[in-house]
Amino acid sequence: MEISILRLGHRLPRDERITTHVALVSRAFGATEFIYCGQHDSSLEKSVSSIVDNWGGSLSVRHEKSYSKVINEHKKNGFVVCHLTMYGLPVLKVLGSESCVSRLKTRDSKLLVIVGAEQVPSDVYQLSDFNAAVTNQPHSEVAALGIFLNEVTQHRMLEEKDFANAKIKIVPTEKGKNIEKL
Amino acid sequence: MEISILRLGHRLPRDERITTHVALVSRAFGATEFIYCGQHDSSLEKSVSSIVDNWGGSLSVRHEKSYSKVINEHKKNGFVVCHLTMYGLPVLKVLGSESCVSRLKTRDSKLLVIVGAEQVPSDVYQLSDFNAAVTNQPHSEVAALGIFLNEVTQHRMLEEKDFANAKIKIVPTEKGKNIEKL
Repeated sequence: MEISILRLGHRLPRDERITTHVALVSRAFGATEFIYCGQHDSSLEKSVSSIVDNWGGSLSVRHEKSYSKVINEHKKNGFVVCHLTMYGLPVLKVLGSESCVSRLKTRDSKLLVIVGAEQVPSDVYQLSDFNAAVTNQPHSEVAALGIFLNEVTQHRMLEEKDFANAKIKIVPTEKGKNIEKL
Repeated sequence: MEISILRLGHRLPRDERITTHVALVSRAFGATEFIYCGQHDSSLEKSVSSIVDNWGGSLSVRHEKSYSKVINEHKKNGFVVCHLTMYGLPVLKVLGSESCVSRLKTRDSKLLVIVGAEQVPSDVYQLSDFNAAVTNQPHSEVAALGIFLNEVTQHRMLEEKDFANAKIKIVPTEKGKNIEKL
């Protein structure tokens, strides 16, 4: 499955760390494209690129002015669009629904996941194919994205994985730290 | 299961939002006690209490100076201590291990989850019963905690849930927002 992430409404300095966490979760759980709207932030792009450079994988990062352009272009390219929101339907119900399963079941399925900031414009709910809630409680878009991607990828990123072109990797250890240079 | 969370090394203003997200994820995924070390932060305590006040549930929040005191007291009270760290063993292996399963299988099991900040003191790895990695990749303690608690609670918080004493709740909706006053 090809996974892209669209992060809405990035604000500086308020969202600096949260958006970085969103991007790193995207990478760790198998996304290959990270797009953000709101304020342009070259320091965010640099930190994410530096993680990719050291730890491997192929997450690209870019800023776009118009979220609706991103959504519409991805739809045109065959992406299923899923917006994570506490107002949506329970996530496991959405992922288990026939309309979702039938569109995400093949190896070459494409998925665009939208992650909001404080105020999500109302047309995002309309433009999305699915509005899914990772609980209907206020918590964190970072956790919501992690749990969602973990379910979509069927927990496979929780196993020990090698990321292509990594310069360093962790050797899992019962107590303590072990980093290996590759 | 009784779940407590210990957040290490809270720094102001750097961790303001991240620690708030950690606390809200704790609440949404069934923890009832949130303890943080590092700098005291009454604004963090107020925001979390205000969420509990409006959305219900029973998460308590408090600051403690010594993490080792918190860990040792919880161990004395029968808590299993699990530290989330990218250096640890794969989380599903830890949760599926006989020593973990046997200690967490009963309804009255108690679990203390430790969530670090940038630099985790090395004795935390030793004091913990388990060091579990939610992937061995750098991403986010917020997502790691969400995924971990979601696994430990067997996805049950992903269903539509009523929180005790809530003043408001969300009515899950396919498109748009619907908040109900209770």
